[in-house]
Amino acid sequence: MVVNRVHVDYARNEKSEIRNPKSRIRNPESEIQNPESEIQNPKSEIQNPKSRIRNPESEIQNPESEIQNPKSKMTTLTLPGLIDPHVHLRDPGATHKEDWHSGTAAALAGGFTCVLDMPNNTPPTTDGDALRAKQRAASEKAVCDYGIHFGAGADNVAIAASLAAQCIGLKMYLDQTFGPLRLDSLEPLVSHMRAFPKEAPVLCHAEGRTAAAAIFVAQLFDRPVHICHVSRKDEIELIRKAKEKGVRVTCEVTPHHLFLTRDDCEAIGAGRCEVRPMLATRADVEALRANLDIVDCFATDHAPHTLQEKDSASPPPGYPGLETALALYLELVREGILALDDVIARCYENPRRIFDVPAQAETWIEVDAEAEWIARGSEMRTRAQWTPFEGRLLRGRVTRVVLRGATVFENGDVLAKPGSGKNIRPNFSLSTGEG
Amino acid sequence: MVVNRVHVDYARNEKSEIRNPKSRIRNPESEIQNPESEIQNPKSEIQNPKSRIRNPESEIQNPESEIQNPKSKMTTLTLPGLIDPHVHLRDPGATHKEDWHSGTAAALAGGFTCVLDMPNNTPPTTDGDALRAKQRAASEKAVCDYGIHFGAGADNVAIAASLAAQCIGLKMYLDQTFGPLRLDSLEPLVSHMRAFPKEAPVLCHAEGRTAAAAIFVAQLFDRPVHICHVSRKDEIELIRKAKEKGVRVTCEVTPHHLFLTRDDCEAIGAGRCEVRPMLATRADVEALRANLDIVDCFATDHAPHTLQEKDSASPPPGYPGLETALALYLELVREGILALDDVIARCYENPRRIFDVPAQAETWIEVDAEAEWIARGSEMRTRAQWTPFEGRLLRGRVTRVVLRGATVFENGDVLAKPGSGKNIRPNFSLSTGEG
Repeated sequence: MVVNRVHVDYARNEKSEIRNPKSRIRNPESEIQNPESEIQNPKSEIQNPKSRIRNPESEIQNPESEIQNPKSKMTTLTLPGLIDPHVHLRDPGATHKEDWHSGTAAALAGGFTCVLDMPNNTPPTTDGDALRAKQRAASEKAVCDYGIHFGAGADNVAIAASLAAQCIGLKMYLDQTFGPLRLDSLEPLVSHMRAFPKEAPVLCHAEGRTAAAAIFVAQLFDRPVHICHVSRKDEIELIRKAKEKGVRVTCEVTPHHLFLTRDDCEAIGAGRCEVRPMLATRADVEALRANLDIVDCFATDHAPHTLQEKDSASPPPGYPGLETALALYLELVREGILALDDVIARCYENPRRIFDVPAQAETWIEVDAEAEWIARGSEMRTRAQWTPFEGRLLRGRVTRVVLRGATVFENGDVLAKPGSGKNIRPNFSLSTGEG
Repeated sequence: MVVNRVHVDYARNEKSEIRNPKSRIRNPESEIQNPESEIQNPKSEIQNPKSRIRNPESEIQNPESEIQNPKSKMTTLTLPGLIDPHVHLRDPGATHKEDWHSGTAAALAGGFTCVLDMPNNTPPTTDGDALRAKQRAASEKAVCDYGIHFGAGADNVAIAASLAAQCIGLKMYLDQTFGPLRLDSLEPLVSHMRAFPKEAPVLCHAEGRTAAAAIFVAQLFDRPVHICHVSRKDEIELIRKAKEKGVRVTCEVTPHHLFLTRDDCEAIGAGRCEVRPMLATRADVEALRANLDIVDCFATDHAPHTLQEKDSASPPPGYPGLETALALYLELVREGILALDDVIARCYENPRRIFDVPAQAETWIEVDAEAEWIARGSEMRTRAQWTPFEGRLLRGRVTRVVLRGATVFENGDVLAKPGSGKNIRPNFSLSTGEG
């Protein structure tokens, strides 16, 4: 029983432990009993992942040494189930774009066993009724685990604080976005930062100077803040400076802001290219890549819209991203920019820590690191059926996902039943803020 | 010789010394020689200002006790020459609105012996040539002392830093204003805050969240920042919170934001009412008044435009304010909101400290605190020839201004020659920032 023997509990892992992966293995003796088993059965290589993970620097120096040699049979990576802290599954309200089943199926196909859903639905997730409606839809359809972010409105400060325990975090839209949740003034920013429980995450869509404002107000009220989808040089450098000063700020970047620039819009198409924050310059992309050491999380900002909508006269902003993300993150490893454990830190350890995501017992994903494939929107599980990376050659594909001991995805097929995904914050308790 | 005997050196005063005003007097023995002189000669009351200033609390409890009783012959206040840290004298570029003579004459009439001029001229004061042109115009025409603020542009970071020694401060326009100097993005805010010499003041037109951003970026680069014309409740409360946290931020408020609300626009007229920041609500005015203890400076934001311009289809924003300001500040004393020394702190001591204004030797103003007059734009020295306080009954009028030992304004007449005003920062030396 491979599943039992390599039972992995990532819940107690810290980054340092990844470098000594034995601590991730509940039954290390199995390694001693059959030390060669990983050669004979590449899928069980988690038993001795040292050769791949223990010395990430060697990977950077020669990143292709083990991945490109099929004879080593080391092409399958076994990784923790990934966490995407920023997705828009559109359910309820716009299930023609995505619903909890199609969206979480796309997540599994992309290697994500937990997704944190954003509140800009119709109606927005800004009160108890809307939260319950979303919880209900998710509980009936989701095939991976999930958390729900609550939406900050101009008039729901007390409501948001009172419902913090049932949500993963409070999302504040402080700049142009899709949907009705934009907050323009200082007052609601201050009120929510003051009232929302100090231990519960606050996430901000805050570009440029607005990011500086959001970080400052959080600091004034002695709370951390998470800046979503950082896309520009001035923003990432501001966050670096703030971190150097000891300010409690974390941040995420998206695959599209790491791999695409506004110069790609001609090929992608003007309407499809619309996204917030907008694609930036080559200099911005290079700055993000040069500052990856202070990027806490990768987040897809999976924001599905149909092609009909994207190609219309009023294209809504947003890209689907769950099914292409991991291959792009692995491209950063092949490029020598990151070690594999740096990817794991940004897709698993840091999101777990920042958003207090509970451990998923007996959960992992298997990735054929060498599998080459062409990104084709029409072949994807997202109902959006398109991708800004259309036609791109990608390397690395999820072959199997095990969630709580059960194989939920294998060789392209979703095996989990709708509703088998769990709300990771059903009864979580938090103290209240200062009001 | 009254002038010699009561020679006042305000340069070394701190607020605490105001409460023991003997320290302001170079020859305290004169008081002993003729302790009753102030009764016989009310203009010399600076010799023993104790009864008025030493116990400001008593003034609050009974603010009218000494001012309203003409029998006490205490109606003439002798105050330090006031400093207005924020005026727009329009010269060069728009001398049909104001020039260095008309603007500084208005300043003297208002009790100001030093004004700090803003850079949104045509062309803006954003390079050496423009600065020299303004210095030249001022040196030929000014009748009171002055400093010149430099303008932050998107492309003049190094130039601004190199010219800091010849300017009073760097003004950054981060929100909607009059003129071409608005900066919208994070990058120039960061660049100027990093490069401008740490000891030299940076002033920001920054409303709402932008104020939070400006304060945060200043903090990141270990420098103080001054927020101009704070007008709203959320802004003043943010600044209070920041000050409580030890953040190095100072601020100013204008008379119009302390006395007018948007409800006054109907009476003032829509075009004339245009000003940035716009007049706010009664709640905002009340919040400013409730937080005056953390307001460092009063500033008129004297921004003259002609009536023809204000009544046009595209009215430019801004009010003249130099000639009505002091009477309004004194109204705050009569209302019991401030003590007289609180006004002096905001019009003299704090501007001196924040903007490092050198002492003006043998300089003071005399104010008939009981003089009642009707604000009439047509009677003013500002070339704008109008006021948003038109028709208002004001109490308190400057009767005499002594600048460096010479009477430069008396009984409504400007006696100083054009060009007698001094640039207070002709050869000031500052170290450079970190680049």
